[in-house]
Amino acid sequence: MHAASFNKMNATSIQPPYLLFLGNVHDSIDAKTATGVCAWRPERCAGQLRLGSCGVDLDLPDLTIPQAAASGVRTLVIDLALPGGELSHDWINLIAEALSSGLDVASGLHSKISDIRTLREAARKSGSRIIEIRNVDRAFPVASYRKRTGKRLLTVGTDCSVGKMYTALALEREMKATGWLADFRATGQTGILIAGSGIPVDAVVSDFVAGAAETLSPDNEDLHWDVIEGQGSLFHPSYSGVSLSLLHGAQPDAIVLCHEAGRTVNSDFINLPLPELEECAELNLCMARMVNPDVLLTGISLNTSALSEPEAQECLRDVSNRLAVPAIDPFRTGVGEILAVLP
Amino acid sequence: MHAASFNKMNATSIQPPYLLFLGNVHDSIDAKTATGVCAWRPERCAGQLRLGSCGVDLDLPDLTIPQAAASGVRTLVIDLALPGGELSHDWINLIAEALSSGLDVASGLHSKISDIRTLREAARKSGSRIIEIRNVDRAFPVASYRKRTGKRLLTVGTDCSVGKMYTALALEREMKATGWLADFRATGQTGILIAGSGIPVDAVVSDFVAGAAETLSPDNEDLHWDVIEGQGSLFHPSYSGVSLSLLHGAQPDAIVLCHEAGRTVNSDFINLPLPELEECAELNLCMARMVNPDVLLTGISLNTSALSEPEAQECLRDVSNRLAVPAIDPFRTGVGEILAVLP
Repeated sequence: MHAASFNKMNATSIQPPYLLFLGNVHDSIDAKTATGVCAWRPERCAGQLRLGSCGVDLDLPDLTIPQAAASGVRTLVIDLALPGGELSHDWINLIAEALSSGLDVASGLHSKISDIRTLREAARKSGSRIIEIRNVDRAFPVASYRKRTGKRLLTVGTDCSVGKMYTALALEREMKATGWLADFRATGQTGILIAGSGIPVDAVVSDFVAGAAETLSPDNEDLHWDVIEGQGSLFHPSYSGVSLSLLHGAQPDAIVLCHEAGRTVNSDFINLPLPELEECAELNLCMARMVNPDVLLTGISLNTSALSEPEAQECLRDVSNRLAVPAIDPFRTGVGEILAVLP
Repeated sequence: MHAASFNKMNATSIQPPYLLFLGNVHDSIDAKTATGVCAWRPERCAGQLRLGSCGVDLDLPDLTIPQAAASGVRTLVIDLALPGGELSHDWINLIAEALSSGLDVASGLHSKISDIRTLREAARKSGSRIIEIRNVDRAFPVASYRKRTGKRLLTVGTDCSVGKMYTALALEREMKATGWLADFRATGQTGILIAGSGIPVDAVVSDFVAGAAETLSPDNEDLHWDVIEGQGSLFHPSYSGVSLSLLHGAQPDAIVLCHEAGRTVNSDFINLPLPELEECAELNLCMARMVNPDVLLTGISLNTSALSEPEAQECLRDVSNRLAVPAIDPFRTGVGEILAVLP
């Protein structure tokens, strides 16, 4: 299978129903992608495949590969923290069995499973696809700065892992429930498996990230919202460039700032204080105005899971007063207040 | 020749003396890399190779491949705007001859010349190296945010093509002439051919650009200056992420802001006004302070080539008064004033 074929694969969607491979992971942290897919898109998930010592149960039917193939499963999804960092022979055999049975395999593993000849050949023989979610072989254009039709909301953050994907998914769900036209646009591997398509922007060559963000969120109907999953933070020195490219390519009409209540220092660098919410909002708005002068801050999304209910309510009230926009915890309060203030 | 061998090649330096291939280009714009190398590093350039209708003369000896090989040339440098966008058979034959004669070939062409089997085999047989300057197959780490020893200056800009490379080279030259320890650190292909090494940061996968900038500018002696070539602009929506990653990885102690006097709109987008110098300086400082609170704006470098001498002097005085730092035109006034205010 040539590089060119993989290019096309990255561009196409990941077909449900999924069989979620859990291997023998011990806790749900190691299977957080499968957990996320199952939580946000239960309708895409037909079953789980667990091995002997697996300590995780997603409350899905346990299916073998033949059972999955017989019941119409289209894709085996593998996105786990690997024990020892390497694929074992047992796992390779299972993946080969899935490919030979006609299932696509969508892999979020660090190493390319298509580099393994057995798997490449199994795919070739059956016509199945190997989809490497972390890898981007597609070419994207340099960003055009062209204004697109339709509306765009981007979630941004004070740091990594503060709820940017969760908030975007909650917003899309609420918009659809309210009868709005909306699409979650995935920029990371868990989001891509949830949505069934997307672009892992941090794997794109730097010159083309803003162009990839434009590609991800094309012209649409005037009232349609693209809810774009943010990445990193303008204040995270390792990933700030990815965040800025995404902001400039997205040209958002609305920004929702995400933060974990109580976190005061960068998750990777304990000697780097996080910015105040006001400072973070202002810098994101300043940068976003370069590409869309009408951009608005439309909400603060706080992960208040470390707080008691009264503490959380007080925190949300305080933040909402300080920043003069709705402050919500998508898990605790829902996101309805944000929809009410969108342009 | 495997991908792995090319990785190593990208990491190693490009060996002088160079033979600069000019093919049959008509004007110096199409040969701007060769012109730049010849202007900044005449000591690296042993000759030029011109074909029949070539309209450019770098005032170097015209050498054939055998003459170049006999006189000790180490590398044939090819970085031209290609007529028709494709390598002609004549050129391929010449490149093969160079490789077979033991010369390395450093190519800045868009397409990989190592994809051409004849050339790959010629290199393999003679042990010569094909160095693809635009391509980065090396892996870089995620930025560590670790403070390095030594000092760093980064040139930043209001836009693309405003003199960031030129200014950095002029600063390095002046520092060395003054007896300082200094190294120009190249981040684009012309700079890499001039310096003989560097990293084309816009070709690095976005997650690793800040890490590449850290790699490019490692620990050094306390009084040593790395003069890092900036790329793009925080205000250029297509490339802003590259600029920010470079800023955050460089952790500069000093910033020099480059601009073309009189340019009011973005070079790629006529409907996008350029920022005021004050605004551009402040945003770069704000971003740089996240990784180095002591960063200083130490000068404005203006390309005043469109102005008369009195106009240029007035413009430089005005800008210097407004921003309270030296304002220079490296071509017209030199960069000495900036050295005088460096920390």
